[in-house]
Amino acid sequence: MKLPGKTVQRLSRYRRILHKYRYLEEPYIFSHDLARLLNINPVQVRRDLMLIGGSGNHRKGYHVKQLIELIGQKIDSEKGRNIILVGIGKLGQAIAEYLSDREMFQQVVAVFDIDPVKVGKTMYDIPCYDIRELNAFIKKNKVSIAILTIPSDYAVTIGEILTGAGIEGILNFTSVRLSAPEKVFVQDFDIVTALEEMAYRVSC
Amino acid sequence: MKLPGKTVQRLSRYRRILHKYRYLEEPYIFSHDLARLLNINPVQVRRDLMLIGGSGNHRKGYHVKQLIELIGQKIDSEKGRNIILVGIGKLGQAIAEYLSDREMFQQVVAVFDIDPVKVGKTMYDIPCYDIRELNAFIKKNKVSIAILTIPSDYAVTIGEILTGAGIEGILNFTSVRLSAPEKVFVQDFDIVTALEEMAYRVSC
Repeated sequence: MKLPGKTVQRLSRYRRILHKYRYLEEPYIFSHDLARLLNINPVQVRRDLMLIGGSGNHRKGYHVKQLIELIGQKIDSEKGRNIILVGIGKLGQAIAEYLSDREMFQQVVAVFDIDPVKVGKTMYDIPCYDIRELNAFIKKNKVSIAILTIPSDYAVTIGEILTGAGIEGILNFTSVRLSAPEKVFVQDFDIVTALEEMAYRVSC
Repeated sequence: MKLPGKTVQRLSRYRRILHKYRYLEEPYIFSHDLARLLNINPVQVRRDLMLIGGSGNHRKGYHVKQLIELIGQKIDSEKGRNIILVGIGKLGQAIAEYLSDREMFQQVVAVFDIDPVKVGKTMYDIPCYDIRELNAFIKKNKVSIAILTIPSDYAVTIGEILTGAGIEGILNFTSVRLSAPEKVFVQDFDIVTALEEMAYRVSC
């Protein structure tokens, strides 16, 4: 059964909250507490968890560790596990550091840059490769997700290399709209444009 | 005339490209070059620029500095100028540093945290205040845009303080869906959830 995108997003959010309780001795949580922490309707939480086969104890709620495991079985995939980060400037470094600090099923396995000072080194324990090795690395390691944090001028070219090599998901931090094949899932995270659009909206 | 959100986003993107050329002697740029750099249809670029009253020279293209100024006149606003950043952990620091490095009309004027080690100091030249001063600061300084980079557990509470104090735009990096009044513009940038959703999609 294929879960809707919104459901997957909520399951991901539940798990992040659950992670905080998992080191307690036999932790349980009620759906309404989970709902409150995420500002979601408790009915929605129960429906989502029922959909993946989770069942709560009437008096104690859901078993936290079992629920974490169940969510992982439903949404994690070996295919989506390895991520690459393309462009290790200020924003790329920030994201690499932020992700390195989180306990996730997914992991950043390589970063790519053109800067000879960075290439060949490791950054946040991740090896940095020359951007010319991008195509070969993706194919060899069957990577399907990339985070794009390069200057916008290069976004079109690098976007084409990524999709040409078989990347199927791109988290795009550049200001460029990528023209990717339909099967590629592109999500735009353009901080500056978002802030400038907000400035315009609040002034109207 | 109120511009559509998508138009404002594109104008923001044009300006970021234009900024790179502005120190050249009398720089001009053609709409098709701008279009190519942003992977947009040139007709769209010309239409957007015509909409704000920009006119290009047939042989030389658009005058870069004039165009930057014109875009600023249309989309920048004093009201949206000052931004606050709430939560100066790893991600907050990363974003503060990223933005401090960019030449923008907008600026981060204050950061807020609960950590006594950070409060009272400056970070990336921005003063750090105690989060209890949030409400008073927003009202006193008429801030209308906030970037939210706190742990998700606090998102509901802090979100309510922000909107209660008059914030009208929130760039939300937490995993929580904020329930803000309708006039408040919330944009979600949840990196971990985006990556986990991609992992699910590429495996289907």
